[in-house]
Amino acid sequence: MSQGNQPHAMVQMAHGSGGGATHRLIRDLFVRCLGNPILEQLNDAAVIAWVDLQGRGASAPRAEFPGAGVEASGVGSRAPGEGEAAKWRVAVTTDSFVVKPLFFRGGDIGRLAVCGTVNDLAVCGALPRYLTLGMIIEEGFPLEQLERVVLSIRETCREAGVQVVTGDTKVVERGQADGLYINTTGVGMVPPGIQLGGERARPGDAVLISGTIGDHGMAVLSERAGISWETSIESDCAPLNGLIQAILAVAPDVRCFRDPTRGGLAATLNEIAAQSQAGIRVEEGAVPVSDAVRGACEMLGFDPLYVANEGKMVAIVPEARAGGILDVMRRHPYGRMAARIGEVVREHPGMVTLRTGIGGERILDMPEGEMLPRIC
Amino acid sequence: MSQGNQPHAMVQMAHGSGGGATHRLIRDLFVRCLGNPILEQLNDAAVIAWVDLQGRGASAPRAEFPGAGVEASGVGSRAPGEGEAAKWRVAVTTDSFVVKPLFFRGGDIGRLAVCGTVNDLAVCGALPRYLTLGMIIEEGFPLEQLERVVLSIRETCREAGVQVVTGDTKVVERGQADGLYINTTGVGMVPPGIQLGGERARPGDAVLISGTIGDHGMAVLSERAGISWETSIESDCAPLNGLIQAILAVAPDVRCFRDPTRGGLAATLNEIAAQSQAGIRVEEGAVPVSDAVRGACEMLGFDPLYVANEGKMVAIVPEARAGGILDVMRRHPYGRMAARIGEVVREHPGMVTLRTGIGGERILDMPEGEMLPRIC
Repeated sequence: MSQGNQPHAMVQMAHGSGGGATHRLIRDLFVRCLGNPILEQLNDAAVIAWVDLQGRGASAPRAEFPGAGVEASGVGSRAPGEGEAAKWRVAVTTDSFVVKPLFFRGGDIGRLAVCGTVNDLAVCGALPRYLTLGMIIEEGFPLEQLERVVLSIRETCREAGVQVVTGDTKVVERGQADGLYINTTGVGMVPPGIQLGGERARPGDAVLISGTIGDHGMAVLSERAGISWETSIESDCAPLNGLIQAILAVAPDVRCFRDPTRGGLAATLNEIAAQSQAGIRVEEGAVPVSDAVRGACEMLGFDPLYVANEGKMVAIVPEARAGGILDVMRRHPYGRMAARIGEVVREHPGMVTLRTGIGGERILDMPEGEMLPRIC
Repeated sequence: MSQGNQPHAMVQMAHGSGGGATHRLIRDLFVRCLGNPILEQLNDAAVIAWVDLQGRGASAPRAEFPGAGVEASGVGSRAPGEGEAAKWRVAVTTDSFVVKPLFFRGGDIGRLAVCGTVNDLAVCGALPRYLTLGMIIEEGFPLEQLERVVLSIRETCREAGVQVVTGDTKVVERGQADGLYINTTGVGMVPPGIQLGGERARPGDAVLISGTIGDHGMAVLSERAGISWETSIESDCAPLNGLIQAILAVAPDVRCFRDPTRGGLAATLNEIAAQSQAGIRVEEGAVPVSDAVRGACEMLGFDPLYVANEGKMVAIVPEARAGGILDVMRRHPYGRMAARIGEVVREHPGMVTLRTGIGGERILDMPEGEMLPRIC
């Protein structure tokens, strides 16, 4: 890795920010050491073809699934190609949650752990089906709080239509794990025909957001700092699979969905720009931000474009579809404040620019340091 | 939950022991709140039928997999029945690793995280395919150590024939997470015809173990305590999928495999006795224990029957198969010291007894407290 020549290089909070440092750690360590065609997709969930699941090139019999043999000529696993998209595929994603505090306005670590993983599946076009639940609990954690978290998981699973199918419990000594860390891994099914990915953005496409930004990050920060605003700020934490399926039902040619969590909208748009090698231009005035979040950000010195969301998504869509998709979004409870916030452009490939209210245009960078640690 | 009436009840180290307290927490909280037929299998991995994956009773089309319609008359998910075992199924398992220290003789947290999850899939008869990798890293953790762990993951993945397909990285502040916690979730495929489960043990069956017990727990404990024995004790940490597949190739009618990790052989045998409602009788003198582990256990006051293993498995097999299976085990590098250690009996259903060298017989209880915390 790039820091490999520095024997005393250490992991920093920024490595968990979702911004530049995280991306470099993933590329220079995890992908370099563990790379394979599925991992290298680097989308929110890994999408695996049936033929790979059954062991492409392995001795396992495949005859049960007629048609699978078509792709079986390749040896070794690879990312699913266009041909395989004609079949059901399996999507897998994982997320650990270390949010502090565990309970906050609009949610808690349990709801967050279900929504985060459900949304990573949903933005890949998968129908979320199953979750695994790994809990690392601090010795002395009140069982009553643990039960509150589990009940919140149950309620959110019901809302999202997923089931917890297996789990694991570890207990660590007092002073470790800050009460509770949760890992959820999700398994979903991608229906035939769905092809989504950041690399599919094309100049001329519209950039949509499903609602106001910055709510989750500012809600958690307020809770942690013990600030109560005049207008309360609530986390937007919500499962988006219903909204995404409603959109795909009318517009199967969406280029990509992405949920702007750590690193906020700025990090997500930079990822899409980098993957597609197109430019993205955002109209600052078009980005929905609640008055409460805007006020809190101004007072505390944050930019809402970099603050995490847990119930919002970006959609890159063909321009001709934008109006229809916005209509669908706005009719859904989790998309009422949806807006068109920009477009994909030929200029400045791989970069995101922000057109400000007074007509200027500046680069919207990938975030670097860690502004708001432990928000998910 | 049973502790629900005690408002100040707290999570204790014993809740993570793999023994009685863990089982009660799982039953009284997780299963009670989140229960569904797949979760309630309570095997090492959840096994899911194709028809469930594609959404039993949902509107998703199923026509692609001829034959799936046979089971599609049921509505809502349920555990796969005998009929579904005629098809490939998906197995999913999750494990978080909080071992202390991170590096020990014979392994490290990376090798452990791959083996633990691979083995949970393998004992269910699944061919392990894919892993997800969730890392919670302490701020200040040396990148050089992180790289050692990732390289160990790579090497163990190659040995086991699995790929890391997606991951997640979180960073927590100094003083949290003891350097590094890892969650691995595994996805595997169960070939048609495989039916394994603790509930399948029958009186008359033989109980086999693939080698010496107690090595992992005593290796980690020695490392933690800074003890160096005259004869070194090494963790047995190893992927068992190759060994298990070799056995299934000659004896597809094995009743069940189980890897005796937390809680050791005693906890595993108690689980099988409870699931099958048969008794299990173990010959103490037949259980292989290395001299080094036996000596260390005597000196430190541990019973090897309760000490964790990470590269061993119990097999419950029809008596007539025992000899042939032992031959297969002993030809495999991870089964050289395999032994027949007891039998399933009609007496004392649900309980395990130990026949001692001097001819006595005593109950081998499910472990209660936490003897050796943080060994996986």
